[in-house]
Amino acid sequence: MKIAVFGTGMVGDTIGSRLVELGHQVMMGSRTATNEKAKAFVAKHSTGASAGTFAEAAAFAELIFNCTKGDGSIEALTLAGSAINGKVLLDVSNPLDFSKGAPPSLIPSLSNTNSLGEEIQKTFPKLKVVKTLNTMWCGLMVNPAMIGGGNHTNFISGNDAEAKATVKRLLNEFGWKSENLLDLGDITNARGTEAVLPIWLRVWGATQNGAFNFKIVS
Amino acid sequence: MKIAVFGTGMVGDTIGSRLVELGHQVMMGSRTATNEKAKAFVAKHSTGASAGTFAEAAAFAELIFNCTKGDGSIEALTLAGSAINGKVLLDVSNPLDFSKGAPPSLIPSLSNTNSLGEEIQKTFPKLKVVKTLNTMWCGLMVNPAMIGGGNHTNFISGNDAEAKATVKRLLNEFGWKSENLLDLGDITNARGTEAVLPIWLRVWGATQNGAFNFKIVS
Repeated sequence: MKIAVFGTGMVGDTIGSRLVELGHQVMMGSRTATNEKAKAFVAKHSTGASAGTFAEAAAFAELIFNCTKGDGSIEALTLAGSAINGKVLLDVSNPLDFSKGAPPSLIPSLSNTNSLGEEIQKTFPKLKVVKTLNTMWCGLMVNPAMIGGGNHTNFISGNDAEAKATVKRLLNEFGWKSENLLDLGDITNARGTEAVLPIWLRVWGATQNGAFNFKIVS
Repeated sequence: MKIAVFGTGMVGDTIGSRLVELGHQVMMGSRTATNEKAKAFVAKHSTGASAGTFAEAAAFAELIFNCTKGDGSIEALTLAGSAINGKVLLDVSNPLDFSKGAPPSLIPSLSNTNSLGEEIQKTFPKLKVVKTLNTMWCGLMVNPAMIGGGNHTNFISGNDAEAKATVKRLLNEFGWKSENLLDLGDITNARGTEAVLPIWLRVWGATQNGAFNFKIVS
């Protein structure tokens, strides 16, 4: 599959590398085609990896991963232009607000009665936004078997059933068992999954271990 | 132990009944000493249960459970007066805002960069507030063994180490194994545990089963 990864940070690099390893063709998108981190990502892989602007990556891809920082996601997608229309956006970003001390809080206008996932869907109605994977460290996103035999929970929210089915197949490729994928319903449920960050950050702070996830026990 | 339960709803009744069953003396506190639900609670138990005003219950008790609705907790504790000073408050309440549709959101002034647990501690500095049990259905609070062999996570936050030790002993009586109690640190960590509600409510909505809890897998 031709996949764009928006964002050149640790999350984008981890997801992009795993996708290349699985045989996908990945273009990392960023503000400029000469981004140093994107060039380093390309250099790491002998084949399957490329880099371009957000618009170039969107035009290249059938599906886009949003791994940009939450406060820059809308801008990144705006820069991508009309090339995003009709595509699936797998949104792993979180609306973190680092301006009020550590651990970060959530951006007020993008939390509680709104969410970043919803805001993206409202701003780009032709995009098929699927919120998932945002509740854990990126190493686990692409390799859930690293802990607990892979038996912990990944949430999914989105308005488009077909887009969610596409995303679930990709998650299966990452190693997610279908029984551990909990479909919460439409994209407004991103209000719930993005609100996991405040507890995630504090469990991380207390245990000093980011390689954990939440499992629904019933 | 002499224990006050503030709040006459399902949570207060469930916790109060379990405490009586464990041999504690429980006074249910409410706005009036003649509250019908409090009288029904007393009538259910042949011994160990009584009812009174918030002030009477606080004066009676060594430890107080706050099972009032989040938007009424500060007022209930204010009505209790100086009898709360120096006591442990085991706070299970959540700052839910039902004014903006279902599922409820969080009261803006008591979430994100604040929390109800912190607000109570700031308002009543002589109270020893310990936030715990607020991330699950009340049936599980008092009987964790009901699911998953009791192996799921209960968070604890509070500023007073001795008060937290007292609360942990009580949680052990409810059936909580010490290894499943995750002490996050001071009361500001209630910002994290109260933010569990948005995801809790959506998992409940998607699964139609409230008898679940989150387990930290690592």
